Amino acid sequence: MCAKKVAGVLGATGSVGQRFILLLADHPDFELKVLGASPRSAGKRYVDAVNWKQTNLLPEFAKDILVTACNAEAFKDCDVVFSGLDADYAGPIEKEFVEAGLSVVSNAKNYRRQTDVPLVVPIVNPEHLELVGEKLAAAKQQGKDRPGFIVCISNCSTAGLVAPLKPLVEKFGPIDALTTTTLQAISGAGFSPGVPGMDILDNIVPYIGGEEDKMEWETKKILGAIAKDKRSIDLLSDDEIKVSAQCNRVPVTDGHTECISLRFKNRPAPSVDQVKQCLRDYVCDAAKLQCYSAPKQTIHVLEQNDRPQPRLDRDRDSGYGVSVGRVREDPVLDFKMVVLSHNTVIGAAGAGILIAEILLAKNYI
Amino acid sequence: MCAKKVAGVLGATGSVGQRFILLLADHPDFELKVLGASPRSAGKRYVDAVNWKQTNLLPEFAKDILVTACNAEAFKDCDVVFSGLDADYAGPIEKEFVEAGLSVVSNAKNYRRQTDVPLVVPIVNPEHLELVGEKLAAAKQQGKDRPGFIVCISNCSTAGLVAPLKPLVEKFGPIDALTTTTLQAISGAGFSPGVPGMDILDNIVPYIGGEEDKMEWETKKILGAIAKDKRSIDLLSDDEIKVSAQCNRVPVTDGHTECISLRFKNRPAPSVDQVKQCLRDYVCDAAKLQCYSAPKQTIHVLEQNDRPQPRLDRDRDSGYGVSVGRVREDPVLDFKMVVLSHNTVIGAAGAGILIAEILLAKNYI
Amino acid sequence: MCAKKVAGVLGATGSVGQRFILLLADHPDFELKVLGASPRSAGKRYVDAVNWKQTNLLPEFAKDILVTACNAEAFKDCDVVFSGLDADYAGPIEKEFVEAGLSVVSNAKNYRRQTDVPLVVPIVNPEHLELVGEKLAAAKQQGKDRPGFIVCISNCSTAGLVAPLKPLVEKFGPIDALTTTTLQAISGAGFSPGVPGMDILDNIVPYIGGEEDKMEWETKKILGAIAKDKRSIDLLSDDEIKVSAQCNRVPVTDGHTECISLRFKNRPAPSVDQVKQCLRDYVCDAAKLQCYSAPKQTIHVLEQNDRPQPRLDRDRDSGYGVSVGRVREDPVLDFKMVVLSHNTVIGAAGAGILIAEILLAKNYI
Amino acid sequence: MCAKKVAGVLGATGSVGQRFILLLADHPDFELKVLGASPRSAGKRYVDAVNWKQTNLLPEFAKDILVTACNAEAFKDCDVVFSGLDADYAGPIEKEFVEAGLSVVSNAKNYRRQTDVPLVVPIVNPEHLELVGEKLAAAKQQGKDRPGFIVCISNCSTAGLVAPLKPLVEKFGPIDALTTTTLQAISGAGFSPGVPGMDILDNIVPYIGGEEDKMEWETKKILGAIAKDKRSIDLLSDDEIKVSAQCNRVPVTDGHTECISLRFKNRPAPSVDQVKQCLRDYVCDAAKLQCYSAPKQTIHVLEQNDRPQPRLDRDRDSGYGVSVGRVREDPVLDFKMVVLSHNTVIGAAGAGILIAEILLAKNYI
Repeated sequence: MCAKKVAGVLGATGSVGQRFILLLADHPDFELKVLGASPRSAGKRYVDAVNWKQTNLLPEFAKDILVTACNAEAFKDCDVVFSGLDADYAGPIEKEFVEAGLSVVSNAKNYRRQTDVPLVVPIVNPEHLELVGEKLAAAKQQGKDRPGFIVCISNCSTAGLVAPLKPLVEKFGPIDALTTTTLQAISGAGFSPGVPGMDILDNIVPYIGGEEDKMEWETKKILGAIAKDKRSIDLLSDDEIKVSAQCNRVPVTDGHTECISLRFKNRPAPSVDQVKQCLRDYVCDAAKLQCYSAPKQTIHVLEQNDRPQPRLDRDRDSGYGVSVGRVREDPVLDFKMVVLSHNTVIGAAGAGILIAEILLAKNYI
Repeated sequence: MCAKKVAGVLGATGSVGQRFILLLADHPDFELKVLGASPRSAGKRYVDAVNWKQTNLLPEFAKDILVTACNAEAFKDCDVVFSGLDADYAGPIEKEFVEAGLSVVSNAKNYRRQTDVPLVVPIVNPEHLELVGEKLAAAKQQGKDRPGFIVCISNCSTAGLVAPLKPLVEKFGPIDALTTTTLQAISGAGFSPGVPGMDILDNIVPYIGGEEDKMEWETKKILGAIAKDKRSIDLLSDDEIKVSAQCNRVPVTDGHTECISLRFKNRPAPSVDQVKQCLRDYVCDAAKLQCYSAPKQTIHVLEQNDRPQPRLDRDRDSGYGVSVGRVREDPVLDFKMVVLSHNTVIGAAGAGILIAEILLAKNYI
Repeated sequence: MCAKKVAGVLGATGSVGQRFILLLADHPDFELKVLGASPRSAGKRYVDAVNWKQTNLLPEFAKDILVTACNAEAFKDCDVVFSGLDADYAGPIEKEFVEAGLSVVSNAKNYRRQTDVPLVVPIVNPEHLELVGEKLAAAKQQGKDRPGFIVCISNCSTAGLVAPLKPLVEKFGPIDALTTTTLQAISGAGFSPGVPGMDILDNIVPYIGGEEDKMEWETKKILGAIAKDKRSIDLLSDDEIKVSAQCNRVPVTDGHTECISLRFKNRPAPSVDQVKQCLRDYVCDAAKLQCYSAPKQTIHVLEQNDRPQPRLDRDRDSGYGVSVGRVREDPVLDFKMVVLSHNTVIGAAGAGILIAEILLAKNYI
Repeated sequence: MCAKKVAGVLGATGSVGQRFILLLADHPDFELKVLGASPRSAGKRYVDAVNWKQTNLLPEFAKDILVTACNAEAFKDCDVVFSGLDADYAGPIEKEFVEAGLSVVSNAKNYRRQTDVPLVVPIVNPEHLELVGEKLAAAKQQGKDRPGFIVCISNCSTAGLVAPLKPLVEKFGPIDALTTTTLQAISGAGFSPGVPGMDILDNIVPYIGGEEDKMEWETKKILGAIAKDKRSIDLLSDDEIKVSAQCNRVPVTDGHTECISLRFKNRPAPSVDQVKQCLRDYVCDAAKLQCYSAPKQTIHVLEQNDRPQPRLDRDRDSGYGVSVGRVREDPVLDFKMVVLSHNTVIGAAGAGILIAEILLAKNYI
């Protein structure tokens, strides 16, 4: 029985921070000890600083933790730091943490496009964490101090999109073209204020700022390969894969639904049954590593023609499993299907926890 | 000042029938005199037979009309009969009406696929009504009685899809490939019971029985040309246009949102600005004919990046105008855009009224 | 044909201000010429300053009006000024306007509790406007300049509550006890951000800050009598009427539903039929004065047992009519019933317009 | 380790039946062996007969159970039978089961008003189960076969109402008058079709057939005492307690919110703090008996002024705990407060399970 790793949370009073805290309560690998938030909250007991808005109660252990400011010194004993910071603040703070030798798993978008930073959906491309391993090994070899590093969690809607792509590409070769139209839950926009009620009752908002670009770009990084020098990721080029996203906000609390279509490069394309079997057979590396939060079934292939539905299917495997339904031929590309993922679990805080579990399994933290 | 044409409504107590009645109240061209419904309702005053579920009050004139059974004899004085019958009943009843020489405009799907029956979105392909004109002229020439005929209203989600296609095809030539992912309002499914509340609160249903096939097929008929003998429509073939639809039911009362993408056959494709200008410039024939319900602006091209939205934009031009927003280039096909149409107006009963106005303007009724 | 009165709107970019503008478009009595907003908006064309969020399009006439700052000088030619200012700003601005001799009809709460300021629900207590008449007459008699004045619009949920009370008290005498539990629409909280979507999807918030106190207090003023000196309103005392409110925010866009119970002081209490007849027979003074916006039927007494419903009934008489249903005996007090009123019409901007129409009919503006 | 009791479920394919099955999966006391449904389903595997609509997956153990018809013979080995039958069918079937010596816990309303049948909210009046104990003891004493019996689960909205009343009456004496206005979730109406989506999106329905009468009547039975002969319940009379309910259906999936007011008979009334402390201190008998499903905290007294909220608070103690907030003085009666209860747990199937656990703890099954 080895001791638990010490964890900290940046942006602890925000919606992502609250989810990190819930997921770290009673976690077998991590003990949450440090909570960082804005100067306004620093110095208060967490229960006094937070406007708790989760459906689960605020865990007892967290109530009396004194909130600290977001500086590296306060987190110096942390083996891993989970960042739920807003993008407005995450840039310099996370940089400071990395320079101080800390290991950061971040939900912010600030460093996602840096090619030497792994952008990881833990049920899809944990192999990109090898960049971290190489960095650590190189420092060790050179007799340097253990370096800090950052791993970025993908955008929530990207996570659902790439989940089924990984096994398909592994089995049937590269994808030539990919389209997705999303129906995204409002929890993805946070709470204060997040999506205004008047925008979303009896309504759809066919636009989420920056989201389509994120999905199109991140997909090319997540499906990309590690460069030869093992220091960066080689993105897929526009010639290698064409990706088109159309993003909508819908009146759903949790769970992103995506209607996707795709065409393989190789001819003949596989059959519908082959596609479904491939998805069903997929076991993600996190499951193979027996990580605590890894889904038992990575991809649930549903046969009822009106599934997946967010209210009924978002909590499969505690939100770490992705559901795929209605796999069928597409008159324009090869296949179309519906993908459902839990945006605050596999699409945000939950992904961070599972990434940390993988880092631990690989002895990177 | 000529007398108003006499109108009847079949399926008068249903949700489509109720909408026909609302739209015919105070209509300058039509006077609603006959209401037909199931044997259970026949003989009752309309106000006693109907479970009125509209946001407008039941018009006074309709309250005391005695509901009749749906037989041609009872409608024999009608210049036009609007059918809101369920598909389960519409087949033989509408057939009987046509054989009795009546002019039927039907929202039911039963005869949509018959190639000698015009399938009309009145702001898109009223020229298909020439089949009716030919039939009438031929009978006249042969000294026969004036024949009955049927015109079918398209499926609600098809109407929104084809609205922007018409002017684009006219200006830039044929479309090679077309995809649409719909976010459809629940009013499209009627009231009793329609979409159950438990299916649609905090939820999406990524399936509407038969809808995708309807959209793919009807598009090929509506964009098709009149055959040389002027007795039928030549559908576009799969080689001429590839259409792929993914249909979702969302928690919205009225207004279908569609995220569409398309590729033209001709190269080079037009620019985004050319596409938007083309849509803006489009004046539908019904407007040129100065039909009472014709939209002042057929297609509203919105420039705000978060529009159209169903709650805010569905009532433009009383629901007869279609809104298009976010016209932009598509990495996979040529363009993507968001289309919003009012499913119970231009997608159902309202389309029927406008079709009848066009029939009248052309002296077909 | 006399010229239209000149109108201005304070807080023109906010949600109440937007409603004022819509209601003043094509109004027969008023011509909207001045739009005031925050310094951030001042100097811009209205169409550039506003984030228009109404289901009706921004009226053409308003688009090019240059927004001004909220000072009395800019509004000096206005015969009436409608204020949609936030309470945070309304206090000193409205005071300045009154001191400058302007006639203000305000939706802000700041001066509602001043006993010399009429607090008016126009279909209920327009007689309280006599305070204005007295003030104007006194100044005239004294040879002074025409004084400015302010009339306050009631809180939105108060409007629905007192509407049925007025005729009942007139006919059956004072009410001893009154309870209301409200189910209030989110449009009452405005747009930016108003009620957050995460608070209201699949949820109820059983609290609206200050609302219960407002309802309990305002009812006592609105049902109160004009003092003998005609300079103030005598509130009903707690002994004269006990009022208890419980306020909830519910997932409805527009329309406040209230479940009310009441007990009369006089015994025996009237019958259910007498109560319903009394409500049906009520004709508000605004209707007698033939004001343009006055409801044709002030109170709609509905007999279907599942009505009124906000989506179906909120727009009766363009939102100026109030609907009452389920009038029945109450085992605890005398009667219970359900009241529905349109919160942004008779409960806010619409009430302001109708108040101004009454002021005009009485030659107070 | 004694063997588990054998359980059966009547109406197993319906929404209440599905909930029984979920709650019995992995239950330490009961083993579900028999599933009864309509003749249409009988003979099929459960997984083939049911349209599963729960957010939890259909438990593996239930999938292959062959559905039987609802006759006593098929359930003869059951120690307890949970009935989720519709009221249309429950009457004769449950009667047959009792006559066959079976122990039935029913969610149907058919026998609730029979004074010799306990009507039980398990966290409120399990002492009423003594009627069962007496019946069993009498039969034993007379050497007769063990008799069957029925225990009724209360109406869902009654459960939330009476939960806080029980400790208050015990401590502060009888209640003179009680009002409740409910905001009820749609899951209470089942699935097929339950509440139509068009009735509940952007809407409130201020009426639920029979519900107000049920709440008013059932409260008088549940708070009543066991008659001296221990064979029936003496209802409270209208003189002893006046109860008035106003019931509304709201757009919430699960969780009934109730705004209640009450007046005690005894003067002086307790203070707000005394009321809150009394509620906090309440430990229900089921908890004292250490029943598996008993809530750890029977009543959660919330201090945040905007709580309880259904989405955030309905799952406290797995839905067996009731939340009370906003306890405050009422200008008309003594106190007002907001009560939230989970309608499908403590208000329906969950109550049945906890009743059975109490029956077991008392050796009545």
